[in-house]
Amino acid sequence: MNDTDLAFASIEDIGKLFRKRKLSPVELTKLMLARIERLNPKLNAYITVTAEIALAQAKTAEAELFAPRGRKGHRERGPLHGIPISWKDNICTKGVRTTAGSKILRDFVPEQDALVVTKLKEAGAILLGKTNMHEFAYGVTSNNPHYGPVHNPWDLARIPGGSSGGSAASVAAGLCFGSIGTDTGGSIRIPASLCGVVGLKPTRGQVSDSGVIPLSPTLDCTGPLARTTRDTAILLGAIAQSDSPLSGSSSARRFAAKFPKCRLGLPNEVFFDPLSDEIRQAFEAALRDFRKLGTDVRRISVPLLNESEEAGNQIAWAEATHYHQQAEHFPGRAHDYGEDVRARLEMGTKVLATCYLQSLYLRTRFIHQLLSAMDEVSVDVLAVPTTPISAPLIGEETTSLAAAKHPTRALLLRNNRPANLAGIPALSIPCGFTSSGLPVGLQLIGRHTGEQTLLQIAHAYERVHPQLRRPPLFAQ
Amino acid sequence: MNDTDLAFASIEDIGKLFRKRKLSPVELTKLMLARIERLNPKLNAYITVTAEIALAQAKTAEAELFAPRGRKGHRERGPLHGIPISWKDNICTKGVRTTAGSKILRDFVPEQDALVVTKLKEAGAILLGKTNMHEFAYGVTSNNPHYGPVHNPWDLARIPGGSSGGSAASVAAGLCFGSIGTDTGGSIRIPASLCGVVGLKPTRGQVSDSGVIPLSPTLDCTGPLARTTRDTAILLGAIAQSDSPLSGSSSARRFAAKFPKCRLGLPNEVFFDPLSDEIRQAFEAALRDFRKLGTDVRRISVPLLNESEEAGNQIAWAEATHYHQQAEHFPGRAHDYGEDVRARLEMGTKVLATCYLQSLYLRTRFIHQLLSAMDEVSVDVLAVPTTPISAPLIGEETTSLAAAKHPTRALLLRNNRPANLAGIPALSIPCGFTSSGLPVGLQLIGRHTGEQTLLQIAHAYERVHPQLRRPPLFAQ
Repeated sequence: MNDTDLAFASIEDIGKLFRKRKLSPVELTKLMLARIERLNPKLNAYITVTAEIALAQAKTAEAELFAPRGRKGHRERGPLHGIPISWKDNICTKGVRTTAGSKILRDFVPEQDALVVTKLKEAGAILLGKTNMHEFAYGVTSNNPHYGPVHNPWDLARIPGGSSGGSAASVAAGLCFGSIGTDTGGSIRIPASLCGVVGLKPTRGQVSDSGVIPLSPTLDCTGPLARTTRDTAILLGAIAQSDSPLSGSSSARRFAAKFPKCRLGLPNEVFFDPLSDEIRQAFEAALRDFRKLGTDVRRISVPLLNESEEAGNQIAWAEATHYHQQAEHFPGRAHDYGEDVRARLEMGTKVLATCYLQSLYLRTRFIHQLLSAMDEVSVDVLAVPTTPISAPLIGEETTSLAAAKHPTRALLLRNNRPANLAGIPALSIPCGFTSSGLPVGLQLIGRHTGEQTLLQIAHAYERVHPQLRRPPLFAQ
Repeated sequence: MNDTDLAFASIEDIGKLFRKRKLSPVELTKLMLARIERLNPKLNAYITVTAEIALAQAKTAEAELFAPRGRKGHRERGPLHGIPISWKDNICTKGVRTTAGSKILRDFVPEQDALVVTKLKEAGAILLGKTNMHEFAYGVTSNNPHYGPVHNPWDLARIPGGSSGGSAASVAAGLCFGSIGTDTGGSIRIPASLCGVVGLKPTRGQVSDSGVIPLSPTLDCTGPLARTTRDTAILLGAIAQSDSPLSGSSSARRFAAKFPKCRLGLPNEVFFDPLSDEIRQAFEAALRDFRKLGTDVRRISVPLLNESEEAGNQIAWAEATHYHQQAEHFPGRAHDYGEDVRARLEMGTKVLATCYLQSLYLRTRFIHQLLSAMDEVSVDVLAVPTTPISAPLIGEETTSLAAAKHPTRALLLRNNRPANLAGIPALSIPCGFTSSGLPVGLQLIGRHTGEQTLLQIAHAYERVHPQLRRPPLFAQ
């Protein structure tokens, strides 16, 4: 393999090369750091590159992996052993500054690792650096006023989506083998969709939020981004809570060789209107592929979906503002926020407690209605477009669609918040490109702890419809 | 025993008479119904008397208890078998109207029993009726605008306290052997204190709220009132969740013959200022009794106690208003509420979500600070006056104390809300009388699921300081 092939290889393939001693973790880490040095200036995907830490970890991994089996020092930590990945910069890292993309935390150096970081270190993963993001994860563009905008690897004039924009961009551009992001209203799935990678928002509570700077505790989820569903499954297995059925690498191995028999549900509400023509075409092509695989597709009606966006907004606004008040950032340091985040924090000061409680109440009814509807038509998985548009231009605040102007932010969030409100898992996978070569994402939404089903279906689809295209600018 | 002695006997003594066939459940039930008919008009403690149900249940209990052992039909349901008790009227009873003391639910007949009612029926308890209360449990006087005020058995011109006023009054006056109330900010302990009976707010979550009309779900607790700690323990054992350590009658039996070695903590904050002279004297006398029993008394400092009242208010206001909105009672039927409850519901519409969330956050810090402080000085139980004043006159909205006027409502709530905020158990027991013959309550506050310790300490105190006085008007 040449260096570019190596940079875009799968985690599994890299693991095989390590174990055949055809590649060493130190060699690979140096290669990745060189790529970051050369290519990151175009993307601005990393806020902090931790070259020294990465090399030290790579040396340890190399010593453990390359010590002869049975000899002292040999250690096998599983599929992430020696694999260089990135972490979103709102995930606390001991001794490494964690800015959350903010000016306020520009010099914040945590004393503890987040629990997911501890787990990834235990699994032998190597930290290349902390990725750029929407300020405090409170937005979907990753157009960061303090560290500069993240650029989309498929078109540098466009946003990668957010808030985990640097994570998605670094994965798509071959500047790491996977990344950990956070998702409160689509912040993993939106950038996965716009950058053409896989992004998973796990079932709420299955991955620890401990040590992750919160946005809205009721909706927040930490989860993986990678280039394939297998790689995503490997990362999920490493970060899931020890007592979770998702924990361990078994989920990565258990992919059925055969496509799992399943029915996909297409909701009548919310997800398909508005929708750009090109996204609709790509989605329908994906559905045809699923039908060819023997999948049954059914309509499903969940009327409370129409209220889920507003409920999610009220919860997020109130909880975000409360967190920033309680951390004594807001309103004291209001001038240190970007304009958009400050405006949202101000909106949060106006939410009434009764409205917040009503949104939590609606959430309960929504979960019940959604699961009942899925039971009724016997579907385990919903299939929808992840975003109704492909990547907008940087700074494009409104988007024209179906002869109407829409706020870009609301369009990108629209199809993602429902899974956060319900606390259920949702996976975005690449399902094609627009005519101008921008990636399109397909979202599979499952039942609580139904990640394995989502990953299996996605894996089968990936096999018949490989999406492993490299952004031309980075295939070098 | 004459009829009055029977009416004021303990649940244990009644059980012995049943099992010796010296008294029958039907006979006792008839006696209690006759007392209610004769004496309740003075008290107005019952909204609904369920004479037919009571007699039918008594016949069943009698058949089960009196069938010869080993014969078909014999059944032993434990210490509550055949014991007539009352239920607060916000606890749903299948087929029996459940008004919650409101005009809005005047004709509401539930289709299901609350879980505590199912448990009490299983335990063989007999339902004499549903007790009067503060409208929707949202107040502490039980001066009900729709069903008339409840009167204090020790002075009919005075309130019994609330919101479980009818429960406490019916227990104190010998119109039942125990009652089930609810407590969101003292609604069991305040009337227990003002009426001279025992009242227990259990650890949050140990007794089901299912089927109980809510006030503030974060703070609400269902719990027992009775004339002795043993009787209270019997009721608690019957209503506790099946998987709770408090479940079963064992807790009633496990009272140590010897006084348990313990240390009592006296908080520096909140509980002793303001305090009426007579309550202070009664409390200090009780402390002397405890010291004679070998108890060590220590000061304890919990600075966040000073913020607990405000935090509790914000939570209760927001949650109560949200419930009434969501049940479509408010604001649509605003004119059907009493003036005080309507005013509080209107206050709830103004609470900000960030303030509500801050109060929940303070609650977490408060629990931590309280438990740490208790650990530090090695105390398992706090001892405080239940209320800083004895029973006020009906309609007395302000009370003069320490040369200042205080809202009566705030004074009565003051010492009670902290245990609701922390979710810990709190027991009010009689500890004497004022010079004008009004009961004084002592409150013991424990650690989570520390009910047994509270009941043991209270029982030991009760033995050296018997409080089983009967209100003169009802000792007939």
